[in-house]
Amino acid sequence: MNGSTTGRILKMSTFGESHGPALGVVLDGFPAGMELCEDDIQRFLDRRKPGRSAATTSRPEADKAEILSGVFGGKTTGTPIAVIIRNTSQRSGDYDAIADLYRPGHADMTFDLKYGFRDHRGGGRSSGRETAARVAAGAICQKLLSEMGITVLAYTSSIGDVHVNKDNIDRELVLTTATSMPDADADRKALELIKKLRAEGNSIGSSVDCIMDGVPAGIGDPVFCKLDALLAGAVMSIGSVKSVSIGDGHLVSERLGSENNDSFIPADDGSISVSTNHAGGILGGISDGAPILLHADCKPTPSISIPQDTVNKKGEASKIIIEGRHDPVIAPRAAVVVETMCAFVLLDSMLAGMSSRAENVISFYCR
Amino acid sequence: MNGSTTGRILKMSTFGESHGPALGVVLDGFPAGMELCEDDIQRFLDRRKPGRSAATTSRPEADKAEILSGVFGGKTTGTPIAVIIRNTSQRSGDYDAIADLYRPGHADMTFDLKYGFRDHRGGGRSSGRETAARVAAGAICQKLLSEMGITVLAYTSSIGDVHVNKDNIDRELVLTTATSMPDADADRKALELIKKLRAEGNSIGSSVDCIMDGVPAGIGDPVFCKLDALLAGAVMSIGSVKSVSIGDGHLVSERLGSENNDSFIPADDGSISVSTNHAGGILGGISDGAPILLHADCKPTPSISIPQDTVNKKGEASKIIIEGRHDPVIAPRAAVVVETMCAFVLLDSMLAGMSSRAENVISFYCR
Amino acid sequence: MNGSTTGRILKMSTFGESHGPALGVVLDGFPAGMELCEDDIQRFLDRRKPGRSAATTSRPEADKAEILSGVFGGKTTGTPIAVIIRNTSQRSGDYDAIADLYRPGHADMTFDLKYGFRDHRGGGRSSGRETAARVAAGAICQKLLSEMGITVLAYTSSIGDVHVNKDNIDRELVLTTATSMPDADADRKALELIKKLRAEGNSIGSSVDCIMDGVPAGIGDPVFCKLDALLAGAVMSIGSVKSVSIGDGHLVSERLGSENNDSFIPADDGSISVSTNHAGGILGGISDGAPILLHADCKPTPSISIPQDTVNKKGEASKIIIEGRHDPVIAPRAAVVVETMCAFVLLDSMLAGMSSRAENVISFYCR
Amino acid sequence: MNGSTTGRILKMSTFGESHGPALGVVLDGFPAGMELCEDDIQRFLDRRKPGRSAATTSRPEADKAEILSGVFGGKTTGTPIAVIIRNTSQRSGDYDAIADLYRPGHADMTFDLKYGFRDHRGGGRSSGRETAARVAAGAICQKLLSEMGITVLAYTSSIGDVHVNKDNIDRELVLTTATSMPDADADRKALELIKKLRAEGNSIGSSVDCIMDGVPAGIGDPVFCKLDALLAGAVMSIGSVKSVSIGDGHLVSERLGSENNDSFIPADDGSISVSTNHAGGILGGISDGAPILLHADCKPTPSISIPQDTVNKKGEASKIIIEGRHDPVIAPRAAVVVETMCAFVLLDSMLAGMSSRAENVISFYCR
Repeated sequence: MNGSTTGRILKMSTFGESHGPALGVVLDGFPAGMELCEDDIQRFLDRRKPGRSAATTSRPEADKAEILSGVFGGKTTGTPIAVIIRNTSQRSGDYDAIADLYRPGHADMTFDLKYGFRDHRGGGRSSGRETAARVAAGAICQKLLSEMGITVLAYTSSIGDVHVNKDNIDRELVLTTATSMPDADADRKALELIKKLRAEGNSIGSSVDCIMDGVPAGIGDPVFCKLDALLAGAVMSIGSVKSVSIGDGHLVSERLGSENNDSFIPADDGSISVSTNHAGGILGGISDGAPILLHADCKPTPSISIPQDTVNKKGEASKIIIEGRHDPVIAPRAAVVVETMCAFVLLDSMLAGMSSRAENVISFYCR
Repeated sequence: MNGSTTGRILKMSTFGESHGPALGVVLDGFPAGMELCEDDIQRFLDRRKPGRSAATTSRPEADKAEILSGVFGGKTTGTPIAVIIRNTSQRSGDYDAIADLYRPGHADMTFDLKYGFRDHRGGGRSSGRETAARVAAGAICQKLLSEMGITVLAYTSSIGDVHVNKDNIDRELVLTTATSMPDADADRKALELIKKLRAEGNSIGSSVDCIMDGVPAGIGDPVFCKLDALLAGAVMSIGSVKSVSIGDGHLVSERLGSENNDSFIPADDGSISVSTNHAGGILGGISDGAPILLHADCKPTPSISIPQDTVNKKGEASKIIIEGRHDPVIAPRAAVVVETMCAFVLLDSMLAGMSSRAENVISFYCR
Repeated sequence: MNGSTTGRILKMSTFGESHGPALGVVLDGFPAGMELCEDDIQRFLDRRKPGRSAATTSRPEADKAEILSGVFGGKTTGTPIAVIIRNTSQRSGDYDAIADLYRPGHADMTFDLKYGFRDHRGGGRSSGRETAARVAAGAICQKLLSEMGITVLAYTSSIGDVHVNKDNIDRELVLTTATSMPDADADRKALELIKKLRAEGNSIGSSVDCIMDGVPAGIGDPVFCKLDALLAGAVMSIGSVKSVSIGDGHLVSERLGSENNDSFIPADDGSISVSTNHAGGILGGISDGAPILLHADCKPTPSISIPQDTVNKKGEASKIIIEGRHDPVIAPRAAVVVETMCAFVLLDSMLAGMSSRAENVISFYCR
Repeated sequence: MNGSTTGRILKMSTFGESHGPALGVVLDGFPAGMELCEDDIQRFLDRRKPGRSAATTSRPEADKAEILSGVFGGKTTGTPIAVIIRNTSQRSGDYDAIADLYRPGHADMTFDLKYGFRDHRGGGRSSGRETAARVAAGAICQKLLSEMGITVLAYTSSIGDVHVNKDNIDRELVLTTATSMPDADADRKALELIKKLRAEGNSIGSSVDCIMDGVPAGIGDPVFCKLDALLAGAVMSIGSVKSVSIGDGHLVSERLGSENNDSFIPADDGSISVSTNHAGGILGGISDGAPILLHADCKPTPSISIPQDTVNKKGEASKIIIEGRHDPVIAPRAAVVVETMCAFVLLDSMLAGMSSRAENVISFYCR
């Protein structure tokens, strides 16, 4: 069954293994006529690229985007946009020693049980590297959203017990700090923590916040394709994410109704806004015009060099020490993955929404 | 676009408004030959039914399931199973007074902005009542799962600050306590809290835990159709849910890798098990044989009779007092919705998994 | 797997057996705000209804449409529209005598082999009666198309060797002749043929033409979702259809390129038209503004009362004589099924087309 | 909307323009563990390759398959298989002269009207070259089918008025004759016709037969996903096809029921077979165990060098003479496209069928 194709009007189909010839994505259903070049994609891939800072693995990967189709004369043509990223820094040998051992916290055992065997080099298809292809597709979506005045931005909101100060966020820093934190102070503290853990061969959990600004009210569908449901599914599909929440998230379970409801108030321009935003910009699965707020919690990187108990393929008890170049924390590189998945879902829901009123369908075709 | 159809091999398509003639569901793709009668469905609907206990609304609804198709001679035929539930306790007049006011925390405004108008009676399609149809479909899935030794059980895990004692859970109680809590002590405390809030015209948040036992390892797909991603999307699509997590959920973001990894250990029967279950039974999107653990946080019921600020359809400021019979807390009735959505997703993923190995396909057709 | 759900933006999900409690359909994704009442649907159902003329079975069925959801205040709400049709003239006993025999030309054996057993009463799910549900959904689509000036009309184009005179078509007659032929002369001749065959207990093949007028150029997608590909799949899914063609259809295989190409010519209004319409209004899967022409060939009704060789469930040779009330020819009742399936596909493709250009997406959301 | 992704359990997503960097396909959902190498794909691509014989264009293209993912250690891994084919013989300049003219019979005008502009080089996405990607995916399906004893073979059945002798078919010839005809005599006559037409700058229509042998009974679904409906949709999605039929096809519309029904007879091995095969191996959308027979009619190649009337982008009348290297007839290269599309649909339906009985689901997971 199709694990690697998603979307409703936009279809994203990713492919590729960590240590195979290439990763890639086909984005089918993207509207025609938008200017697009490889640099538009590369800027986003660079944010996910390994080796980009002290907070990430030292393993270098060029992660260079190559557009194979769907663009002509510098514009999207409406036909599928295929992007591939050749793998260049493959040290498959790193994995030979542990080819028969199941790494705790990884999908080695579950892939073997599902498929009968697996590409063990670097996790193969279950590698975080797969997300590069998603970022490429989401970057294209980001561009069209930005042309509509919509910004989608995700950043590291915590690493271990170091949390960004939500009252003092500097969005510019997201692209420049080693941790993708929008707070220089938290970034510094988190780097110290990372340095210490790296020395110990350990890793640490983290979290990501994503803010979607400028989304018009009315986006999303009732029932199964609620905007929050699609966002949650898309973000939970990122390997390390174990929890996804919208607005005030898990805090709502201890709230009173009178505390949690956001009152409606008349806005100056005649529209309606909310006095608070506990709901995170979505009511009944449909955007209400307030910023959409999503939070994701990521587990610590399972690859650690501390000895662990495990079993081998035959089911025999063993010890494992995972060598190689691994990220000590997930969020600094995963933030842009969360961001681009949200951008993909949001744009897809917007395209879907164009046909929700008969009057719009009629005026579209009878103008 | 299709907000009301979901699933991959199993397709669930729900329909119906809170105060229209009927709610219903079509379950397409369910395997042939399983015994099924209306009672199998009714048992689940009764757990969601309004008026079932002191913790729920007093509004009575028979919520009687009628099977219209897909069953012959007491067995499923493999063709679509349609179930309808006639609405019987419709007091649409309750809503006339507030037809032009946007209820805070509800989808009134967002529906109007999306569709141009809405069925305002009881929330129409955005009513929690829509979930009765999902429960009917999920009940059918539960039966086939149980024939494979798989149990899916969801219960209220907290109401406000009253939490069930996780070390002392009595599964039998889920079906009998007023709160759907598996802990008599917590149930009693929560009922006191509810009584107090009801008197104040207020409501309270809550949470649901869902445990899936007996799921074989190897269920789920890599990338977008990870089992946890599909579960998260399905559960977040339930109206009041604002956060979904798997295993230890948001706690992982402060953990060390050495704390969070679950070690593999040889099981007595030659299979492999995990020493702990922080991951909640899913690795890389695929079940690992341990119990699958899901948690959902629900906001307080937005319908409260305390006066609230709002606006009317014209965008003018107003006050609203919501009369009528409303649940003071969501989880007691939503638990079975979470449970049946999880059952649907799980069965769908199991059906999808049958074709994951070429050797299985060949032996299926060449036996 | 889902045999009974189709569509891309519009989702049609049908259910129901010939002799079960009811047939029905859920139409999900239909735009909000179009006026709709049960009569709009009934007019189409009446064209498919058994017993409507001398050219059809004498078995009476009220085929009364009941709308269960998706309409409020006389308008579609944008939420799923469910329509059910109760079965009333069930003489299941007619089928008991042949419950163990496989009727030639029917799906009895193939259903048994696929599902292990079947609802044998009147064909169950494989009965032509299933198409009533499709007609209900397609009728709703027809209404929106007609509001955009698009007419979709299908009629019986031949019965046996009696063909309508294509140069002398009277569209009004489609709704009034016993055969659904738009040609009084052909209708009369065909009725004579039918009368003779009925006396012999035999049946005869037939064909249907469908004309879609007023379709704007630019509808349809390249590659797999070509408008002609979707039309062909939808029409071939009607039980008795064995061949589907577009434009000049199978005649093109003996043509020269210079004969078959339709030249483009400037139209008076500045648009572009074609001098001929061999292509049937579709080029590269996309409408070119000319009328879309589809033709379908239907096999003779397989239920005949002439003795036939067959086998029983155990695989033993037997004879079968099919009693009961059966149509002697398919097209008179199937024409409206072809028509409404074409209307469904066409509207679905139009909704899909709204997001094909970035400029349209931007102006939709930034107006 | 997604024009370039198809399939239910198997998802095929093609991309690429005639004169862009590459064509390609992602095949998602293919079972794990089947041996696969590039040669398995190349053999099929070579049958579609331009310049392969006197019956095709002289334009050379290496059409070399490169597998980018989904294969490890010589076996499929169950993850998406991506195959790309670099374009090498691009003479885009050939098209500059006619960039502003709409070629009759081509999708130039309809693409412009849909998307606002197009990649005019060689038809871009609407080029027949797109089908190379489909052939690559279908070749992989063919391999698994052949491991189950199923053969799918398509060949040219007519070119103009030269028809193969159905009573004297030599399957071996399909891969060796210039025309892909399984009849040396017809091949010779057709080549003479082609030679003459080529000299005149004209083209000719043709047709393809596809035979699927060894398909077990019980494959396919009722209603919309009937095996014949999916085959018809898939084959009609091939650019030049204007008519698709199953079994005796359009001949059935003049038949009596007593002539057209295939009697069931006991087979020697205890199974059931049919005495004749007018139905073409499918009853009620489900295979009956007899060979599945499909026929497709292809229009003549629209690119001819005889002067034609047309209009330019501005809508002004003009003349066009299409130079360049074009096929004089479609079927010789399209046969393998029909074949591989049928193989894809057939395998997809077989995978879908694995979950049609509850007993099979239970025994699969509880063995």
